[in-house]
Amino acid sequence: MAFEVTEELLENVKSLIEQENNQELKRLLNDYHFADIAEITSELELTEATYLIKILNSEKTSEALMELEDDLRERILENLSAKEIAGELEEMDTDDAADVIAELSDELAESVISAIEDPEHAGNIVELLSYGETSAGGLMAKELVKVKETWTVAGCVREMRRQAKNVTRVHSIYVVDKKGVLIGRLSLKDLLTADAKSHISDIFIPKVDYVNVETEGEEVARIMQKYDLEAIPVIDKNGILVGRITIDDIVDFIKEEAEKDYQMAAGISQDVEADDNVWQLTRARLPWLVLGLFGGLGSVFIMEGYEEIMTEPNYKSLFFYTPLIAAMAGNVGVQSSAIIVQGLANNAVKGSLLNRLIKEVGLSLINGSALAILIIIFGFAMGYELNFSFTIAIALMSVIIVAALIGTFVPIILDKRGIDPAIATGPFITTSNDIFGIFLFFYIAKVILGI
Amino acid sequence: MAFEVTEELLENVKSLIEQENNQELKRLLNDYHFADIAEITSELELTEATYLIKILNSEKTSEALMELEDDLRERILENLSAKEIAGELEEMDTDDAADVIAELSDELAESVISAIEDPEHAGNIVELLSYGETSAGGLMAKELVKVKETWTVAGCVREMRRQAKNVTRVHSIYVVDKKGVLIGRLSLKDLLTADAKSHISDIFIPKVDYVNVETEGEEVARIMQKYDLEAIPVIDKNGILVGRITIDDIVDFIKEEAEKDYQMAAGISQDVEADDNVWQLTRARLPWLVLGLFGGLGSVFIMEGYEEIMTEPNYKSLFFYTPLIAAMAGNVGVQSSAIIVQGLANNAVKGSLLNRLIKEVGLSLINGSALAILIIIFGFAMGYELNFSFTIAIALMSVIIVAALIGTFVPIILDKRGIDPAIATGPFITTSNDIFGIFLFFYIAKVILGI
Repeated sequence: MAFEVTEELLENVKSLIEQENNQELKRLLNDYHFADIAEITSELELTEATYLIKILNSEKTSEALMELEDDLRERILENLSAKEIAGELEEMDTDDAADVIAELSDELAESVISAIEDPEHAGNIVELLSYGETSAGGLMAKELVKVKETWTVAGCVREMRRQAKNVTRVHSIYVVDKKGVLIGRLSLKDLLTADAKSHISDIFIPKVDYVNVETEGEEVARIMQKYDLEAIPVIDKNGILVGRITIDDIVDFIKEEAEKDYQMAAGISQDVEADDNVWQLTRARLPWLVLGLFGGLGSVFIMEGYEEIMTEPNYKSLFFYTPLIAAMAGNVGVQSSAIIVQGLANNAVKGSLLNRLIKEVGLSLINGSALAILIIIFGFAMGYELNFSFTIAIALMSVIIVAALIGTFVPIILDKRGIDPAIATGPFITTSNDIFGIFLFFYIAKVILGI
Repeated sequence: MAFEVTEELLENVKSLIEQENNQELKRLLNDYHFADIAEITSELELTEATYLIKILNSEKTSEALMELEDDLRERILENLSAKEIAGELEEMDTDDAADVIAELSDELAESVISAIEDPEHAGNIVELLSYGETSAGGLMAKELVKVKETWTVAGCVREMRRQAKNVTRVHSIYVVDKKGVLIGRLSLKDLLTADAKSHISDIFIPKVDYVNVETEGEEVARIMQKYDLEAIPVIDKNGILVGRITIDDIVDFIKEEAEKDYQMAAGISQDVEADDNVWQLTRARLPWLVLGLFGGLGSVFIMEGYEEIMTEPNYKSLFFYTPLIAAMAGNVGVQSSAIIVQGLANNAVKGSLLNRLIKEVGLSLINGSALAILIIIFGFAMGYELNFSFTIAIALMSVIIVAALIGTFVPIILDKRGIDPAIATGPFITTSNDIFGIFLFFYIAKVILGI
């Protein structure tokens, strides 16, 4: 069942392209799914890939193009004429076509749109381009099946046969009044089991979930997941049914969001992939490293202030503990922030801030005590004075408490101010916790040891 | 559109429960979606929640139960009799029912199964329990619509009306031969537009994607996403159609997987939520902190070995740089590993290991040079000797290269050995990179400065 592009198939395709043996190429690839064609395309050289897209049937290549990485698709499209691109778009659903157009230069986009033969399709694409990319309007497709409440079941089936030709998958049939306002839905199952003479108004379900064109994609994903919906209709501000979003688009959206959060937590600021080039990777990674560097230089400054401790034979070992303190502060901060960021994303952060504060302090005390005991045992083994070990243990506990509080409350505060809390995970938290942690460590040590 | 449990509604529900006013309670909650009932339930005290589940109609509560957090559902079920649980399971799809049974103690599970009235439903649940939880067999439901190739369209529609009653959503109609072997599919759309007298064998599509009962859930998710499938049939080793998996189950699966990876990267080893109790959170977090502590103590050991540098007035500042070195090693390692882990998950890591090695070294040289320049500027501002600044810069670059290589190749090696590479992100990489980084830093500094 699992499809893999074999070396053999790839060699075969490459040599057929070189021979410009279009007939054999079409025959060979005819039975492959568009997703497999996409996989083959992504393994070819750019000129070969472009050739393949040009000669295969648009019905298949249009879908294959949508499966490709954005970069590769853009590069292939650059080698096609406006008319050829328009040919691909004719076969795409409006939502995909609009996404492709949005990637083109303004000038090219215009000539492609005017090269689309079906004026309704072109008009729909232009409409979709007017919505924000991550809004329900930007995610929806215009293709759907709608029926009027006044129709009979038999008339409805006739009309649907006509409409369904343009719709890849019929999930629900939407019922509208004579102005086009969404008033309910009908499942294919209901239609299948209804008497042919009854009216739609007698059998439709007047309760229907919907979103507005302006609803944010994240909210659409939440609603569709919560109510287990496979498609949701989209209405404009007058209640007119203007499109629908299907679950497959939302699956992609959820995956992209999860990957973005993961990358942010890892200190990668742009959407990059393992196979991007060195410059793209540098742009995504270097800014966070510079942030980390400044954090580290901040620690250098702080320690310069405690330089005289180096002359205390019994206490100079404190400096050996700075990486440990920084690591613990960072780890605790990342743990706390990751839990909160996920909780915020799933709407699972409830209760008062005070309760959360008490809980985090409690948790830190438990974790801190366990680690403090280990530190004291280690100190005993190393032959440290007991008061020295105690000092490190107490300082470590304080650092852990502060790190947990920073990790917990920074994302909550960002979220309340409408900033994506995910930026607070990763390097941001580790860097600030490093500085706070080291400052606190030396401050507490100095006070306790009376240096 | 967005539903929120208001304080008012909650108070109302609570007081009706206290008054045991079942009639009014049923009337009040009648119009709410099961997902909303689940949200209300999760805000109640356990005894109230149990009361609500008992008195509301099983048709609604069975679905609401599936929306609850696993913990809460288990606690509610503990307060129900075997017969009451069986009543809920009767209304669930077989896949959900099997998941619930799997959470019960063996003894209770047995009495619940024998209390289920419909022997076919009970038999199906028992069958599902025999598969691995994350295999296609464990994810699938027995509910589906299947027709025989020999039937006519009219006969098929009659039979489907009967079958469809048990199926929440009809995606595809599966076509089987007389032994029950899957041979193709039919869309509702096709059936709607076909002549009533034609035979299924004339109109069905003989190409159908499927998975085996033993296929792993991750692979099922990959196939369904790649081919944009909303449902996929599952066959046993003889090709017999035994169930189907729908996209909503896979959406949950994808989300859980993404959250697990994210938590692992953050150093959280079990599936926990912001609202779990302190002990659960400690169990998930403490092990990684202990790992970090051991790493930190390893650094202490290493630095003890370089203690004599503290007596060098010009070079003792090296010790102030250890948190910086550790942080940079950690950040670079996490960035590299995150990109590789995502790439492995998306099958996007291609090409030879040597090329990847060259690329990582190149990337590290670029990032490292930029950071080295900043370090030298900082040293100039602080009035360090130039050879001291250069030493730190060169040591930092070496550390970055090694950290990037560890971050890149550890996940690749783990993946090749069949271990989830996500465990290599987060604390594991940062801890090992801390130790390597600090060792390398002092070693290089000593060699260059000739201390």
